[in-house]
Amino acid sequence: MQDKTYNSAINLLLQHRSIRKYQDKTVPDEIIENIVQSGQQAAFAYQAYSVLLSREKEKHPFHAPLYFVICIDFHKIGKIMETKNWKVIMNDLSCMLLGMQDAAYMAQNMVIAAESLGLGTCYIGSVPYYADKIAERLKLPQKVFPLVGLTVGYPAENPPTRPRYPLEFVLFENEYPELDKNAVNRAKKEMDDGYLSQNYYRNLNAKLGLIGDREETFDYDSYSWTEHISRKLGQWEPSTKRLLEQLEKRGFSFKDTENE
Amino acid sequence: MQDKTYNSAINLLLQHRSIRKYQDKTVPDEIIENIVQSGQQAAFAYQAYSVLLSREKEKHPFHAPLYFVICIDFHKIGKIMETKNWKVIMNDLSCMLLGMQDAAYMAQNMVIAAESLGLGTCYIGSVPYYADKIAERLKLPQKVFPLVGLTVGYPAENPPTRPRYPLEFVLFENEYPELDKNAVNRAKKEMDDGYLSQNYYRNLNAKLGLIGDREETFDYDSYSWTEHISRKLGQWEPSTKRLLEQLEKRGFSFKDTENE
Repeated sequence: MQDKTYNSAINLLLQHRSIRKYQDKTVPDEIIENIVQSGQQAAFAYQAYSVLLSREKEKHPFHAPLYFVICIDFHKIGKIMETKNWKVIMNDLSCMLLGMQDAAYMAQNMVIAAESLGLGTCYIGSVPYYADKIAERLKLPQKVFPLVGLTVGYPAENPPTRPRYPLEFVLFENEYPELDKNAVNRAKKEMDDGYLSQNYYRNLNAKLGLIGDREETFDYDSYSWTEHISRKLGQWEPSTKRLLEQLEKRGFSFKDTENE
Repeated sequence: MQDKTYNSAINLLLQHRSIRKYQDKTVPDEIIENIVQSGQQAAFAYQAYSVLLSREKEKHPFHAPLYFVICIDFHKIGKIMETKNWKVIMNDLSCMLLGMQDAAYMAQNMVIAAESLGLGTCYIGSVPYYADKIAERLKLPQKVFPLVGLTVGYPAENPPTRPRYPLEFVLFENEYPELDKNAVNRAKKEMDDGYLSQNYYRNLNAKLGLIGDREETFDYDSYSWTEHISRKLGQWEPSTKRLLEQLEKRGFSFKDTENE
């Protein structure tokens, strides 16, 4: 390990872990405003986002006191353009690509701001697959797409930080290297040993089943990160259809056609 | 303005502005490692990213000492899965949606870490449109897509923070509201007055031309944010084609078919 130029902000970033248990303690309004305004100050292309807040904790993932749904929003900007006699003709894929970044940079700033105030957070990544139901509940207009959920509240658990790939498997200088067997195995080992030593999947009881002819040879002494993500990426959602339909219902089409 | 529960991390987030002029001063290795490791600790679905670093500043936007290209990466994870006799069958659109978030959350953490160390940054959002050229230069394998560029270095300018929408135009509780004329006009005014008072577009000499029959009625006393983004979203990139081609060249297809 080399010398590190840590400071309090970097320590905050390095201490991140998702929180899935929350205290039954209200988060004050001014803290909510701080968090969202910190999000807004992230770099943007079009500020193409909106943040929907719910405080009905019994309805939230993990019964978190706050649940934000961060949306990509081209409705709002359309409203502004309308007053100037313009309309959006940029294709929906480009809008999505930039809007998704606007929304994601803003969401990540919200996470950092919340954690700096002693709050815990967890992203809910399945939101786009239920975009139609969420849109109905939140009365989202066309051209607003729910990208990700975010639970926020005071933590009622104190889990360790989770392992990450070794830096050599992430940061490449000048060109993307041939990844030899040793580099791949080091990355696997770092992730698998790390999650096993924390009993992560055992504690969450999160082993995924096998589809088809594959025989189960893993128990919680061996089931770890690379097995878990292999079962997700190797078995789930082979078709684009579900997501394309959700996007189309919200007014985003990736077909090779022009807007208007 | 209500009382704010600011702290040093939130102050850092609220002080963000993009930096487009850099000192000719080297950024030490350990700081680069800090920044990328801070990025890695962001929440992820699959750690589906790689970061390509260049220090050849004469080739970079704004001649910044460091230029990172943050990529969505499903090559690496495929390599890991291969050793376990698995392959990615998840459709490319789902991979993109989650990989883009992995990469964006990581990139935003890099920005925060860099700024906490006194560095300035600027995202380069045009990268996906030149994915083929970038892939060639960086020798990116298939299933690696360059999402965004990030310039980093010690600032040689000290611009003010830029305006954002009023909070009431971003944060909505329970449901998305009808946006009445007044709310739209307040948001417009906040953005336009703010950028005008900073002479932002005049200083950058960044007025965009008009395509077709529209008559120019703006000069730098009136040309501001809403006009600028209207000219982008209202005139540019009507077709999905260019971006779909770039994605397909990198091995990502959004057609309604299954992988394999």
